Amino acid sequence: MTEQVQLVPNNSLITKTPEEGRQLAVKMARLIIKITQPSAEMREKMRPAYAEDPAMLIAVGQTVATEFATIAAANNYWR
Amino acid sequence: MTEQVQLVPNNSLITKTPEEGRQLAVKMARLIIKITQPSAEMREKMRPAYAEDPAMLIAVGQTVATEFATIAAANNYWR
Amino acid sequence: MTEQVQLVPNNSLITKTPEEGRQLAVKMARLIIKITQPSAEMREKMRPAYAEDPAMLIAVGQTVATEFATIAAANNYWR
Amino acid sequence: MTEQVQLVPNNSLITKTPEEGRQLAVKMARLIIKITQPSAEMREKMRPAYAEDPAMLIAVGQTVATEFATIAAANNYWR
Amino acid sequence: MTEQVQLVPNNSLITKTPEEGRQLAVKMARLIIKITQPSAEMREKMRPAYAEDPAMLIAVGQTVATEFATIAAANNYWR
Amino acid sequence: MTEQVQLVPNNSLITKTPEEGRQLAVKMARLIIKITQPSAEMREKMRPAYAEDPAMLIAVGQTVATEFATIAAANNYWR
Repeated sequence: MTEQVQLVPNNSLITKTPEEGRQLAVKMARLIIKITQPSAEMREKMRPAYAEDPAMLIAVGQTVATEFATIAAANNYWR
Repeated sequence: MTEQVQLVPNNSLITKTPEEGRQLAVKMARLIIKITQPSAEMREKMRPAYAEDPAMLIAVGQTVATEFATIAAANNYWR
Repeated sequence: MTEQVQLVPNNSLITKTPEEGRQLAVKMARLIIKITQPSAEMREKMRPAYAEDPAMLIAVGQTVATEFATIAAANNYWR
Repeated sequence: MTEQVQLVPNNSLITKTPEEGRQLAVKMARLIIKITQPSAEMREKMRPAYAEDPAMLIAVGQTVATEFATIAAANNYWR
Repeated sequence: MTEQVQLVPNNSLITKTPEEGRQLAVKMARLIIKITQPSAEMREKMRPAYAEDPAMLIAVGQTVATEFATIAAANNYWR
Repeated sequence: MTEQVQLVPNNSLITKTPEEGRQLAVKMARLIIKITQPSAEMREKMRPAYAEDPAMLIAVGQTVATEFATIAAANNYWR
C-alpha cells in the first residue's frame, strides 16, 4: 500500500469558491479509495458496483458530505 | 465521470432561510449521486430502490442531515 | 418528487427548549423521508420495516442525533 | 406514533459531570427508539437482536457517540 | 440493563496527551457495548465477530473516531 | 487485546501540512483496526475483503474523513 499518492491535492484545504471546495471533497474521498485499493484495474472493475448500487451511491455521498464539512470550515464557509 | 456538473447551486452556501438551506442540502446530496452515476437513465432505474427501501430512505436522510449541518453553520444558523 | 413540502417547520431552527428542539429534529428527519418517498401509502406500507427492524430503529436514531446536533448548536445549547 | 414521550429528560442538556452526560446520551438515544417503536412488547422482543448482534452493538455505540458529542459541547466539555 | 457501569473512566474527558485521549475514546466506545450487552460471557462469544469481520472492524473504527473528536475538542486538541 | 500499540503516532495531532494531516488520519484509522484485531496474520488475511469490496472501501473512506476532521480542526485547518 503506497503512501506516495498525494492525498490532498495542492496540499491545501483552501479553495476560492464553494464549488471548488466541493470538488476537492470529491477528490479527497476518491484518493482514500485509491490508496486502499492501489490497483487501477481493480478499481475500474469495481466501478459498476459503485455507480449502479443505490446503497453505495448514498454511502459515497455520506463520505463526501463529511469531507466537505471540514473543507467548508477551513474556508470559513466562503462567507 | 464528468466534473462539469455544478455541485453547489449558485456556488454559495448562504441562503435566506433555514427552509432554503434545507433544500440546498437535499440538492447537494443529489448532485453527488449525479456525478457518481452520470447516466440519467440508470439513476431513473434506481429510483424505486431509493424510495421503496426503508434502509435507503434513512441513509438518504443521514446524508442530508450531514450536508445541512454544514450549511446551517455557514449561515450562522439563521439566528 | 415535489419540493413543495415544508422541510423546516416554522422555517426556523430556534426553539424554546431542548425538548422542542428534539421534536424538531425528529420532524426534520421524517420530512426528508417524505420528500424522497412522496406517496403516503408507500410510507405507511414501509412503517413496520422501520418500527420492527432493530437495525433501522438504530439508523433512525443516528439520523435524529445528527439533526439534533445542528439544532442544539443553533440554540447555543439552550444554556 | 405518540410524541407525548419526554425526549430530553429534565428538558436540559446540562449535566453536572461527564458521567451524567454520558448517561443522558444513552437515554436520549433510547428514547428515539421508544417513539419510533412505541410498543413496549415489540421493543422487548427486539432486545436480543440489539444485545446479541455485534453489528447492532456497534451501531448503538455510534449513535450514543453522536448524542454525547452534542451534550459534551453543551457542557463546554465539563472543563 | 445496569447503569452501574462507569461510562466515563475518571469521570473526565481531560487527558494529558493525545495518546491517552485516544485510549479513552476506545474505552468509552467499549463501555457502551458493555452496558448494552452486560453479559461478559455473551461479549466474549461475540469477540471473533468483531475481530474477524472487516466490516465490523471498520465500524468500530468509525465509532472510536467519533468519540475521539469529542475528547480532542475537550482538550483543545492538546495544542 | 494489547493497548501497548501507539495509537497516535508522535503523540500529537499537529502536522506541518494538510497532506501530513491526511496521512495521520489514515494511520490513526488503521491503528484502531490493529488493536481490535492484534493478529498480523488475521489482518493480512482480511486485506482482500477491504480492498476488493466497494462497500468497505467507502466505509474506510468515511472513517478517515471523520479522523481528518479532528486533525484539521487541531491544526486550525493549516490556514
